[in-house]
Amino acid sequence: MVAPLKVGLAGLGTVGTSVVRLIESERAQLTARCGRAIHIVAVNARSRKKDRGVDLSRMRWVSDPVELAADPDIDVFVELMGGAEGAARNAVTAALSAGKSVVTANKALLAKHGIALAEIAEKQKVALNFEASAAGAIPIVKTLREGLAGNSIARVYGILNGTCNYMLTRMEREKLSFEECLKEAQRLGYAEADPSFDIEGHDTAQKLSILASLTFGVRVDPSAIYVEGITSITTADLEAADELGYRIKLLGVAVKTDKGIEQRVHPTMVPKDSAIAQVMGVTNAVTIDAEGIAPITLVGPGAGGMATASAVVSDIADIARGARTAPFGRPVSKLTSSRKLPMQRHEGGYYIRLLAVDKPGTAATIATRLAEHSISMESIVQRHRGPVPEGRRAPVPVILITYATTEDAVRKALAAVKRDRVISGEPQLIRIEKN
Amino acid sequence: MVAPLKVGLAGLGTVGTSVVRLIESERAQLTARCGRAIHIVAVNARSRKKDRGVDLSRMRWVSDPVELAADPDIDVFVELMGGAEGAARNAVTAALSAGKSVVTANKALLAKHGIALAEIAEKQKVALNFEASAAGAIPIVKTLREGLAGNSIARVYGILNGTCNYMLTRMEREKLSFEECLKEAQRLGYAEADPSFDIEGHDTAQKLSILASLTFGVRVDPSAIYVEGITSITTADLEAADELGYRIKLLGVAVKTDKGIEQRVHPTMVPKDSAIAQVMGVTNAVTIDAEGIAPITLVGPGAGGMATASAVVSDIADIARGARTAPFGRPVSKLTSSRKLPMQRHEGGYYIRLLAVDKPGTAATIATRLAEHSISMESIVQRHRGPVPEGRRAPVPVILITYATTEDAVRKALAAVKRDRVISGEPQLIRIEKN
Repeated sequence: MVAPLKVGLAGLGTVGTSVVRLIESERAQLTARCGRAIHIVAVNARSRKKDRGVDLSRMRWVSDPVELAADPDIDVFVELMGGAEGAARNAVTAALSAGKSVVTANKALLAKHGIALAEIAEKQKVALNFEASAAGAIPIVKTLREGLAGNSIARVYGILNGTCNYMLTRMEREKLSFEECLKEAQRLGYAEADPSFDIEGHDTAQKLSILASLTFGVRVDPSAIYVEGITSITTADLEAADELGYRIKLLGVAVKTDKGIEQRVHPTMVPKDSAIAQVMGVTNAVTIDAEGIAPITLVGPGAGGMATASAVVSDIADIARGARTAPFGRPVSKLTSSRKLPMQRHEGGYYIRLLAVDKPGTAATIATRLAEHSISMESIVQRHRGPVPEGRRAPVPVILITYATTEDAVRKALAAVKRDRVISGEPQLIRIEKN
Repeated sequence: MVAPLKVGLAGLGTVGTSVVRLIESERAQLTARCGRAIHIVAVNARSRKKDRGVDLSRMRWVSDPVELAADPDIDVFVELMGGAEGAARNAVTAALSAGKSVVTANKALLAKHGIALAEIAEKQKVALNFEASAAGAIPIVKTLREGLAGNSIARVYGILNGTCNYMLTRMEREKLSFEECLKEAQRLGYAEADPSFDIEGHDTAQKLSILASLTFGVRVDPSAIYVEGITSITTADLEAADELGYRIKLLGVAVKTDKGIEQRVHPTMVPKDSAIAQVMGVTNAVTIDAEGIAPITLVGPGAGGMATASAVVSDIADIARGARTAPFGRPVSKLTSSRKLPMQRHEGGYYIRLLAVDKPGTAATIATRLAEHSISMESIVQRHRGPVPEGRRAPVPVILITYATTEDAVRKALAAVKRDRVISGEPQLIRIEKN
């Protein structure tokens, strides 16, 4: 029998206490699966006194996480404190430098310092595992790092933020406005008091940067990602999407193009019959398009104490079994730099919603401007006109779906249409992602 | 740099040649991911002369697969011949006994001799990997073996046979009869000339036996599985399912009950909003219910040369990286015996379709018999009556959905109804699986 794996755990919030509970309740199974026992021998958290509902009596309390990280009596350091800097960064660096394997759920830390940390892990020949950092309990990190090791992947995309998907689902189903829905999500605890990190797409971008690195061998770098949130989405868009056979999801997309790896986060029209379109509420999902085979989609809980703990424990179990993979799937020296591709050069279909001024020649003007930029239409829907106030002619909602074109062409055509004064207000633009 | 991993490959059909192609085309990536090159150094197949469209010139041809398996110059033996006995079994046994790791896609071999082979692998401290044996390119073996190592799983179920799902999808969408659909599937190459292995559920059962072992630590044993195919499913059932908010799928289900691990394969009513219900055509999917977290579903291609090869290559890559896990997740000594639980004791909801004789008292008789066996109804639908031939009263289709009850109760109640002569023909019975 191999000696038990000794774990030091910093951070005893919902996830941390769930990890303690899971390792305790699944002790026998874990020992059988790993060939050795897993013991949490020491812990750290901000407050020692707080009652967390778990038995910590057999674990040493270490008041400084950095001290715990380098503790000679631990084999693995589990970081569940959060934050891209400060204690989390210092402790993980200390643990790796001291030759300890590290498990973390900290996407912010990985997005910012993942490469530097991977370098230390590699040098020290220890593991740096982070299954929980993206898409919670879904084994997407393992799948991209090990499960599809021999595939050339063309695209990976997913719903990585439960808050946004919950909001879009409720807006669609209950025809709630964005603002109503956000209030409701905050009341139910699905959105933060300051929701901007989620709804502006930054949470998705951090996770995408990790998945893009694992998939395409680019360095983790959220600044290489084009990011657009869901705040501009209206029920009119959701209804139009439904009519046209689409749903709107906030996607993180990383795709191989002939200009490099394009990474982007934005509201996206996805065909209703795609696996990703079926994903409702707080659920997360990731689709992988590998060359020569049909898409693979992984669906599951993306957040929550037990879901995150499940991923953390599987990472610890891998270390207990002696498995070690390069943190980002390849040695750091083989990772290529992430380059932000200008969105103007993005190619794809577009959904455009305009308010057309109701006067002769408007349709012809719009059609001409689009044609001038070589944009072809897949469909055109003129929505019913609202009640006409006081004899004046109200603008008419028009929805256009384009065939694949460049973003540059669409932006230029719309700017021209605006200059022509045939539309009222700003056009809405949503990119289409085909399956 | 570690020495290259030397592979001997037996079986050069669609999968074998795809493996050769994939290892060649992804050479650089595989080397970066594994930290060493993977070389196929020797191959075997039935006919040496056949042109397979791949370059085998740098590989040694070994005319006997068993000889290849024990070849001193190979590190890993990849078995893609198929068959539970004969050459495949002998070669895999020889390879493991000679201390070589083995990768196989052979579900029949694993279902029959998996435990004996795992014992040799364990004794020799080599890997026995079989990601491709169930659900093709979906990384379900890795997920159950490693990814959810720390979770207590309550249930695993899935669509594991593309032929059946393709047929059910077409029957549902195009209102084709089972026979028409089968002919069409055979014409398109989705069903074999002798389709019984697929449509009777045996293919699903072999795959389920592997997944059940990985999930619950029971010994692989298809004889412990209750198996029922899809041949009795009619368009009337598919239409009724649709009306009632369900779809019919051939599922393999393994579930923890207080009597043990229940393993069963049968047509199943699944709620339309479940992830598994969205899976159409030849696609496979597996849902995992782990305690305390929302279900995780993996969807993807379950068959085809490239999909299978993708799984085979990821297994080889794991070996190249030095990862080794107990073949069924735990040492053979820790696996418990699979016991076939009598289906009479199965508990769940049921869909029952009857042809009720149109005479006074029929409804009361049926209701009484069900009540006598403590069966409660979730819904009752009396379908429209067909045209009445020559003044006679035709039987009336009645659909019942029960709340959870035992199979024994349902069977006894229906036998009583039959004895009462209030129904015409055999009742149709489909089990419901809730998500």
